[in-house]
Formats: sequence, structure tokens, C-alpha cells
Amino acid sequence: MVVKNNEQGVSSLHELLRQRWSPHHFSSRAVGREKLTALFQAAQSAPSSYNEQPWAFIVATKENPEDFGRILAALMPRNQEWAQHAPVLIVSVAKINLDRDGKANRHALYDLGAASAHLTFQATALGLYVHQMGGFSHEKIVEEFSIPEGYEPVAVLAVGYLDEEKSPAQMIRKRKALKDFVFESHWGISSPSLALEDKKGFSIN
Amino acid sequence: MVVKNNEQGVSSLHELLRQRWSPHHFSSRAVGREKLTALFQAAQSAPSSYNEQPWAFIVATKENPEDFGRILAALMPRNQEWAQHAPVLIVSVAKINLDRDGKANRHALYDLGAASAHLTFQATALGLYVHQMGGFSHEKIVEEFSIPEGYEPVAVLAVGYLDEEKSPAQMIRKRKALKDFVFESHWGISSPSLALEDKKGFSIN
Repeated sequence: MVVKNNEQGVSSLHELLRQRWSPHHFSSRAVGREKLTALFQAAQSAPSSYNEQPWAFIVATKENPEDFGRILAALMPRNQEWAQHAPVLIVSVAKINLDRDGKANRHALYDLGAASAHLTFQATALGLYVHQMGGFSHEKIVEEFSIPEGYEPVAVLAVGYLDEEKSPAQMIRKRKALKDFVFESHWGISSPSLALEDKKGFSIN
Repeated sequence: MVVKNNEQGVSSLHELLRQRWSPHHFSSRAVGREKLTALFQAAQSAPSSYNEQPWAFIVATKENPEDFGRILAALMPRNQEWAQHAPVLIVSVAKINLDRDGKANRHALYDLGAASAHLTFQATALGLYVHQMGGFSHEKIVEEFSIPEGYEPVAVLAVGYLDEEKSPAQMIRKRKALKDFVFESHWGISSPSLALEDKKGFSIN
């Protein structure tokens, strides 16, 4: 599959990755039960170090305004402004110690990030959008939901359909060029094994 | 799209997530330059906190046996046994401090995990498989590739085509049930907003 992308020139980026972006304008349309379930089945399917699956999620939908409000109130005010319109908020939580021996799991956050990315792919496939936030009070979330010792809330995900009237039709994706983060043989040496990019970081293959 | 999955009963899990698994048997077939590039374009497309893109990758292919050997030698012996047959090894590296203010980036590993999941999703779309490893010597990798202060190698990814003769036709995915990690209202309370699962954690919708 070859697709055109604003930023990448002609790219073979999968269409679900190309379509994904983090909007600020969500429609009030609810997310159905089956779709919500599919999001967590996607997270469940992620790989993890020692198959520890060091992840948990706290979900709140607009159908339960009290719980929704408890997550919303923990967000930074500038996130509350737009996230209040999303129909679903989800807290992603990492289990920071290993089940196998109780030691620190140095891959807990990495694996949780992968699980959240799986959730997001699935969302995109279902016509949904996800906007993740790091800007929230960890203390408030821990207290509100009685998150126990050994677990750490990491991000809040707003999930829903796009408000197509208020949202821009496309986003511009600002990213570092591959040559600036894909190295070979030595740190800082751009990999010669990749297809050429032009000076703006656009792939020209 | 509704698909049947070994473990989930009838599930709407996207087929690329369903197909993904971490094999131990790679074919010697090389990964072409365009496909290799597409993997990193996928990583590039991942979302990140403050759009910091706190990731870098060191790639080695079998075409460059010296570099390949340097990554391979850093793996734990039990990983070397099978990973030596993969045509590509990639080290994923997190930038642990923020560009914006130099403080610790508490989402660096989370975002790198998402970027690696994007890479893996793209790999699956291209007929490739990825097996990630946490079992390697961080010190050896840092020294061999002169990874500077402020960056941390997190995983090594073996990438390639499946050796279909040696590999099982399917994997069994062992995962916790949704009810054990998707909560609502309070920690440990299974979310009632999801579609029902039976006692084995299989979705029955």
C-alpha cells in the first residue's frame, strides 16, 4: 500500500497510523459497549516483558457522570476545557513491580505505552480518536480511585468520535526526520540502510 | 470486522493485532530497504508527551555482520540462540530528559513503547514479525555504540520474516481477562461498561 502523506512525501505508512491523530474536538456521540470492549481487547493483545502485562485501566463514560467528573477534575485546567466533551476518559496505570520476583519492572511503562498504542490502533480502526494526556494530578487520581501501592497512573486518554464541524479536516504531523533518530554503527550516525530522505525529512522513495 | 480468535471467542480485534506475535524462528530472508524505512516512519508517527518524540533507534542488518554481531553479543545467551537468525536487530533507546526544560521525562519509556508498537504494527502489515527482548546488557550496548548520558537503551527488537518450516502455525496468546485489569469507579471493580466475558475471560459478544 502506497499512500500520500502531508509530511512524508510518498510513504508506505499503514493507513491506520496515517489517519491517527490527537484531536481537541470530540463529538458527544457515545462509544458503544462492543467498541469499548474491543479497545481493551486490543490493549490486552500487546506484548510485554516476561508476559507480565503490567497494565490496568480505569474507565469512565458520560453515562456515569460522577466517575467521569472524578477523572476530569484531576486533569490540568487546559485539558479539562476540551476533554470534558469526550464521551470516554480512561486512566492508564502501570504495575511497577514484577509479579515474578517483586523487583522493579524496568519495562512497565514501555509495555503500558505499547498497550495504549494497541488500544489506539483499534480505536482508529473503529472510527474513533484518542487524545492522550500527561497533564493531570497523579495524587488526585490515586486518591479518588484508591490505586494501591505498586501501581502508577501514567496517562489519561480521551476517546470518542471527532466533532467534524469544529475539527480541522487534517492535522499536520510535526516530527523529527528519520536521519535524526535512526542510527547505525555509532550513536549519531544516520543509518545508511534506510531509503533516502530529502533535506526536510521527507521520504522520496 | 468480526474475527474469530483462539482465546477471545468472537472478537472484533483488528486483524493486524490478532496476527502479531513474537516468534523464535526467523527466516534468513533480508528485509528490503523500503520496508525497513517504513518501520521507522511508523515509529516516527507515534504520539508523545509534548511531542518530545523521546526515541532513537540503532539498527543493524545481516548485510553489516560486524554491527549485527555487536548487538547480538550484548543479548543474553538464551536470546542469542534464536535472535542470531533474524536478519535485522534494532535497539530502542529512550531520551530520559525533556528537551523543553531538561527535567526528567516521566513519559519517555511510555512513548518509546508506543513508537515500538507502531513499528511492530507496520511490520505486521508488511508480512514481518518482531520479537522484543528486555534481556540484554545495557552496559555493553551503551559502550559499543557510545550512547551518551541522558539516553537509555530499553529493548532489542529482532525483525524479519517467519521461518514457516520451523515455526508453529499459530501461537496461543496467554493473557489476563479484561475483568482483571479494566476497572471502573474504584480500583479492583471490573468495569460494567464492557461487553460480558465468560468465566475464562472469553468475550461472548
